[in-house]
Amino acid sequence: MSCLNFSCNIEGVDVFKLKQFANDKGDVLHMLRSDAEDFTTFGESYFSEVLPKSVKAWKKHSIQTQNIAVPIGRIRMILYDDRDTSHTKGQLQEIILGRPDSYYRVRIAPQIWYGFACLGDTAALLANCVDVPHDPSESEVLSIDSFKIPFQWLD
Amino acid sequence: MSCLNFSCNIEGVDVFKLKQFANDKGDVLHMLRSDAEDFTTFGESYFSEVLPKSVKAWKKHSIQTQNIAVPIGRIRMILYDDRDTSHTKGQLQEIILGRPDSYYRVRIAPQIWYGFACLGDTAALLANCVDVPHDPSESEVLSIDSFKIPFQWLD
Repeated sequence: MSCLNFSCNIEGVDVFKLKQFANDKGDVLHMLRSDAEDFTTFGESYFSEVLPKSVKAWKKHSIQTQNIAVPIGRIRMILYDDRDTSHTKGQLQEIILGRPDSYYRVRIAPQIWYGFACLGDTAALLANCVDVPHDPSESEVLSIDSFKIPFQWLD
Repeated sequence: MSCLNFSCNIEGVDVFKLKQFANDKGDVLHMLRSDAEDFTTFGESYFSEVLPKSVKAWKKHSIQTQNIAVPIGRIRMILYDDRDTSHTKGQLQEIILGRPDSYYRVRIAPQIWYGFACLGDTAALLANCVDVPHDPSESEVLSIDSFKIPFQWLD
């Protein structure tokens, strides 16, 4: 069974509400602190811009944990669990990310597929703090329209 | 003597060119890696939006090191050194930050004053990776027009 909403929570996907501090010169936005209960190690911080009408999918990591927030624009993130050992195997999860109503940090454990699409007419900026530095040998990709994931990005 | 350009480098201010990976769905932008030669510890990652015509200044930290980049929009950063023990005491430094030509990480040691202004008509997003989590007791502020710093933000 797949379900595309918050009530369906894939094992290993955690969503944390982030603080936003209003300021008339520009808001200040939390992302990740080393004293967060779930923090382990810092490997790398980087950004991924997502242009309007664009989809970046699918990817999964073998060892790297993702910590993703969207400080600019709006993103639709889809996650898919195909792990044999997981209680949520076969499930899809949708998370909308963007300020001010959905400014979250999404922590994604290794071995979970994810992808994201820009929502709206302006580019989005996705920020990611991962626990080990980028290593292309530890990630896998599938094409956007792969039949291995029961989700269609394009109607 | 003060000088407002790259040739004047305040002791403890380092500028690193960051990689940008072009992608027709949206570029990928480096920020900080734990295997960078100058990396010490991770304390916190956060964002500061700077609205058009806005200035956020002045601030200095007693123990925290800043790692600042600007993935969205354009910033004018001004730094000022009033440390008695520094060879560059009394100097000002200007750094322009923004993609694609000036996508840098600026590492600012503790005890150096800094501030920044939004350039252009669109909001800028400043990203900061600091080495210890935010603690209001370890920073000092001065008003934008403080006579203690020989720089005028507003003409």
